[in-house]
This record gives sequence, C-alpha cells and structure tokens, in this order.
Amino acid sequence: MRKAWVKALVLDRINNTPVVILGIEGTNKVVPIWIGACEAYALAMALEGMEFPRPLTHDLIFSVLESLDAKIERVIIHSVKDNTFYATIVIKDLTYIDVEEGEDEEAAFLEIDARPSDSLVLAVKKGIPIYVTNEIINEHSVELEIPTESEEKEFKKFVKNMDIDMFRRMLENRRKEDEGKKDE
Amino acid sequence: MRKAWVKALVLDRINNTPVVILGIEGTNKVVPIWIGACEAYALAMALEGMEFPRPLTHDLIFSVLESLDAKIERVIIHSVKDNTFYATIVIKDLTYIDVEEGEDEEAAFLEIDARPSDSLVLAVKKGIPIYVTNEIINEHSVELEIPTESEEKEFKKFVKNMDIDMFRRMLENRRKEDEGKKDE
Repeated sequence: MRKAWVKALVLDRINNTPVVILGIEGTNKVVPIWIGACEAYALAMALEGMEFPRPLTHDLIFSVLESLDAKIERVIIHSVKDNTFYATIVIKDLTYIDVEEGEDEEAAFLEIDARPSDSLVLAVKKGIPIYVTNEIINEHSVELEIPTESEEKEFKKFVKNMDIDMFRRMLENRRKEDEGKKDE
Repeated sequence: MRKAWVKALVLDRINNTPVVILGIEGTNKVVPIWIGACEAYALAMALEGMEFPRPLTHDLIFSVLESLDAKIERVIIHSVKDNTFYATIVIKDLTYIDVEEGEDEEAAFLEIDARPSDSLVLAVKKGIPIYVTNEIINEHSVELEIPTESEEKEFKKFVKNMDIDMFRRMLENRRKEDEGKKDE
C-alpha cells in the first residue's frame, strides 16, 4: 500500500467523462480513475479550495461525523472489479472507550464502502491521507517519464495537452504485456 | 409546522434551474425551491427509486450514520435568508444512554445545518418525514386550485405543461400583496 494524491482532474474527450489522475508517492506511476460529472464537479471545487456559504453534500458528511464525534482517518482505494474501482473510508469513533487496557485499538475504527470519487472529494477537502493498494498499483497504474525537477508543473502542462485516451492505450498495452507474461 | 412531501421536480426554463415543488399536507399550498443541477439529479434518481450497484454520495451519509449507530429522524425546512432556503437534519444518536431516569430525551437528538436539496434527497431515499415551518408556508408558498380528486395526477399534468416562471410571478404578486397589507 502506498500513499497517493490527486495529481490532476482531466476530461476524457472520447466519451466526455472526467478522469482523476492519482499520483503514487515515491514512484513515477499514476492511476487514472473515470468518475461521474457531478462527482468531478465536487472534486474540482474541493481542489480549488472554493468555499460556499452553505454546506455542500460532502460537507454534510463532515457535519454528520462531527456531530457524532467521529472523523475520517484515511481513505483507501483497494480494488477493481468489472472495471469499477472500490474504496473504503476509514472512520475513527472518538467516543470509543478502551474499557480494558490492552484491548484492540482497532475497535475504534469503522470501515465504510465507498466510491473513489466520494472518498477523494472528502480527502481533498480536509487533507485526509489517501492510500492505494499494491494490487491497484501493479495492475492499474501507468508509468510516466517526467523530469523529476518541477515535476508538477511539467505534469500540468502535459495533462493540459494530452489525450486521455493515451492512458487507456497504455493500460491496454500493459495488460496485454501482463497477460503475455502469464502465458509464458 | 406542517408535514410536506416532494410533489414534483421541474425545470425553470428561464434560467435552466431545477425546482422542487413541495406539497404542504392538509392544504392546497406548494413551496417551490430552486436547487442545483447535481442535487436535482440525485433527487430525480431518489424519486424514481433507482438502485445503483455502488453507493451514491447520499447513500454514503446513511452508511456513516449506520456505522455510528445513528439515524435521521426528520428534516425541517425552516427559514429563508437572502432568497436561500435553510434546512435542518435531525439525527437520533441511538447509542445515547439515558443515565438518569427522567433525563431530557432530547439529548439524543442532534441538529445538522443543511441545504433543502440534500435534506430532501435523504428524506425521499428512506421515507423520512419532511416538515416545513409556518414561516415558510406563510411567506413562500403558492396556493394551487387543483381538483382534490386525482389531485396528484392532475398536478403532474399541470407541472408537465407549466412555465415555472408562473410560480415566481405568483410569489412576487403575493409578496406585493403582503407588503401592501403591511403598509395599510
């Protein structure tokens, strides 16, 4: 499992679908995840740090958590089934009282099944750590050759001009390679 | 305060904004509330009872509540400031233990500030009661003359062909009348 961050939010021009590009810490790899238009809108506003007079839907999740004395510890994008990415939101119940010393601390943590889009909006809004499993890094990432210095700037220029379909082709080629390997 | 329900979801053709039409129980009055496109999309899916394989953003709110042993008791659309409607989501903390008998039962209830759109999506999804304050009924409702029998059917026909701007004109006329009254 590695830490990740939202590197960019771009538009797949082929089917007009937004795509989140997740950067994987300590690597040149990125994981593209196709998301819905409304979720992309919420993510774009979160990335821009835009503030609104009224709570948006994801803000409401934070209000609910706060009122019940809980908080999000981390979000984990953990697997892919039938081309759909699955995520988990890990919540810490702050009211949890360790009745017996030495009791499993993990009992205070609750896991909630979620889409990556919602998980990422929540993470970006409050700077909550994002993790991606090795399974996803191994099977659904693309390696980018970007100069390490001023990497972010270069990447922004790169995504601005890119055809997201390139990611799809890269992923397909990668999968073919992997399948080829398995057959050997 | 009166119970209300989502009578219709229509489009304001003037500015292309969706409008929720709330029916007020025991009256011929309706309260139109202009909402955002993404919120309208979520509401439309909730009204249609559409099921999705993955949790949508509002479903995530229910997951969070469930995991923390809490549930939504009711939603209240309570006031309007600067043309913005304000709502409250009333949550019941099911872990609340009445330590002393006779203690205020209200302590188990938590109030969360929300937009009407999110409140209504949540309410429609789980059949949670919706309330509207007298302040809103008195100042922001429009009386409709619809035959009581097969009212819903008639209303649906009516909204299908209507120009939502009519509501705005009716509200404006109403306000002018109210102001006129105050001046008398």
